[in-house]
Amino acid sequence: MTDDQAFPIVGMVGAGQLARMTHQASIPLGVGFRVLADTATDSAAQVCPDVRLGDYRKLDDLLAFAAGCDVVTFDHEHVPGEHLEALLAAGVRLAPGPAALRHTQDKLAMRQELTRLGVPCPRFAPVASLAEVTRFAGEGAGWPVVLKAVSGGYDGRGVWVCGDAAAAGEVLAHGIALLAEEFVPFQRELAALVARSPHRQGAAYPVVETVQRDGVCHEVLAPAPGLSAAVAEDAQRLALSVAGSLGVTGLLAVELFEVGGGLLVNELAMRPHNSGHWTIEGARTSQFEQHLRAVLDLPLGAPQPVAGQTVMVNVFGARDPDLYDKYIHVMAADPGVKVHIYGKAVRPGRKIGHVTVTGSGEDLPALRDRALRAASYLATGEERGE
Amino acid sequence: MTDDQAFPIVGMVGAGQLARMTHQASIPLGVGFRVLADTATDSAAQVCPDVRLGDYRKLDDLLAFAAGCDVVTFDHEHVPGEHLEALLAAGVRLAPGPAALRHTQDKLAMRQELTRLGVPCPRFAPVASLAEVTRFAGEGAGWPVVLKAVSGGYDGRGVWVCGDAAAAGEVLAHGIALLAEEFVPFQRELAALVARSPHRQGAAYPVVETVQRDGVCHEVLAPAPGLSAAVAEDAQRLALSVAGSLGVTGLLAVELFEVGGGLLVNELAMRPHNSGHWTIEGARTSQFEQHLRAVLDLPLGAPQPVAGQTVMVNVFGARDPDLYDKYIHVMAADPGVKVHIYGKAVRPGRKIGHVTVTGSGEDLPALRDRALRAASYLATGEERGE
Repeated sequence: MTDDQAFPIVGMVGAGQLARMTHQASIPLGVGFRVLADTATDSAAQVCPDVRLGDYRKLDDLLAFAAGCDVVTFDHEHVPGEHLEALLAAGVRLAPGPAALRHTQDKLAMRQELTRLGVPCPRFAPVASLAEVTRFAGEGAGWPVVLKAVSGGYDGRGVWVCGDAAAAGEVLAHGIALLAEEFVPFQRELAALVARSPHRQGAAYPVVETVQRDGVCHEVLAPAPGLSAAVAEDAQRLALSVAGSLGVTGLLAVELFEVGGGLLVNELAMRPHNSGHWTIEGARTSQFEQHLRAVLDLPLGAPQPVAGQTVMVNVFGARDPDLYDKYIHVMAADPGVKVHIYGKAVRPGRKIGHVTVTGSGEDLPALRDRALRAASYLATGEERGE
Repeated sequence: MTDDQAFPIVGMVGAGQLARMTHQASIPLGVGFRVLADTATDSAAQVCPDVRLGDYRKLDDLLAFAAGCDVVTFDHEHVPGEHLEALLAAGVRLAPGPAALRHTQDKLAMRQELTRLGVPCPRFAPVASLAEVTRFAGEGAGWPVVLKAVSGGYDGRGVWVCGDAAAAGEVLAHGIALLAEEFVPFQRELAALVARSPHRQGAAYPVVETVQRDGVCHEVLAPAPGLSAAVAEDAQRLALSVAGSLGVTGLLAVELFEVGGGLLVNELAMRPHNSGHWTIEGARTSQFEQHLRAVLDLPLGAPQPVAGQTVMVNVFGARDPDLYDKYIHVMAADPGVKVHIYGKAVRPGRKIGHVTVTGSGEDLPALRDRALRAASYLATGEERGE
């Protein structure tokens, strides 16, 4: 903006696809947007003019990045807690702040705090030895036991479903801090996305169903089909309550298990979330716009859906590195599908984009089929629908 | 994009709000987007990383800009025709090309060509003297006579409605090439927006009503309320036919007068157009995405509306240069209004943004009221609805 206008600048640490889509949302809002990128070819760095290169694990890089930003937010949860405290001490406005973010960085702290707040969670216990895992299983949780890294992970993974003690022993051998959780035989996974601003305004999106494959989100159905109004309201209330209790500024995504008409909290994220990409076309206010409004303490936008049903499907890279020919085919085959390309080199299993289709609630099978076909073709050159 | 992916780069000459919104549309498409800007603070240059500074009136600047672009397109029609020909001769792919663009740069050529094609236009004649204007009025057109600059304009204006010979004399005194047109007592103004790609695919948006004040577009109602299906189809067919006959690549906006159940062509534009801003929220494919798809010869996106009624209202600067406080008020007052800020310094009468609301067709009065209130407040700090 020109000097005579007091439009603020939001800094986002990280320059992946979440930052890329947040930049897109910043354009109509007219606010400044800066990213801290590892390299100039990062997903967001390709499309955003205000890019600072640096390492989010180095305090000096973070301080230099934050200078001139009105507020600093995050596209991931990996900034070390002590750096967050140092930024706060240096007068940088952080959204969310370290006290809230800790619950996405330390899963044990998250479980303990949610339990303290009376929020339903799977049974859990910190474990440091095989004996402790076995005791956890024997005292009612049973096998399989889910082991989770308390923070970070090992070799890119943070969750292991262990069928027996031998499998648990292999995970313990990595030597990282672990948490044991009961394996929940859920009916399905849901996600509740809410926004909260510093002056305590809240907004809740419709609750969605997330369809996972191998522990990775593949599909999002918005709203969750056939979800009872009572459970949907419970999920929204739970997420708003957690956001308030933890002092979240910005978005909070609560991943949930639906079990026997009830809900258990699986994970938390305090940033735009894969389960909310559908909002770009499917809601009055996209999650990316909402996050910017919340961290800037602007009035929140309407979270209402604009279509009866929206389906989002992630696109994962396959072996063929060329995307453009397949992209042309998808556009020709279905002029109504919205393709989102993240500008990332194609590697097997890497999330490189997503597709979205919207329609009426009665169209769900057809919408899923269209979205799955488009995503499958983009990935592999083969159409696989429902 | 990284090197192993053959995503093309679109260059757009000009870096105003049309280029800004086109950059926004380029992000999910994953295509490269470069602008030729006058200054680094131009509307699009603020949000786009690939900015070249230069003068669109200088061939060397245009050639340097075009190097590395897969196709070059335009956010205005002011590039001199001889430079366009020189770019073509240098092997630059232009979309649209000079043969088509000429009809937006030379209004006499446009009228003559449309007449040759049998497209209904207001009566017109080139005029070089007051005697010729008087003869034009006397031979059936009557007074007032509309004088138009054949190309460009004088002191920022290109159209004068002259009530009598004295007023016409003042315009003639500017010494620019002029065209006389009959004053059309139209019922209202409509616009038909279509896209056409090099392999001759066409797509037509719903026909809209444009509400002008002092010759400037203030409001767009999409679709045009109460328009008969037959007239709407005529307008779409006319626009697709003109796009084909003139060899347009990209968007063509045809501004129309509705007169006694028929249509007359007022103006043509071959780029994203103010009458199509509503498509960002209101159509499956925004005009900006559609323009990129067309100029890249990608399959076109679905132009269908996603809401029964969309209303777009332009925001013009008033005396108060501060926008941010008013912007907060508008967001608080109406969480469902979509505000688009162009990043331009506020000056009286300057177009600095627009607002859009969507709803059902029955809501038109309420939607107009909401959009007008938001735009009025952003401009002046006072709410003036319907």
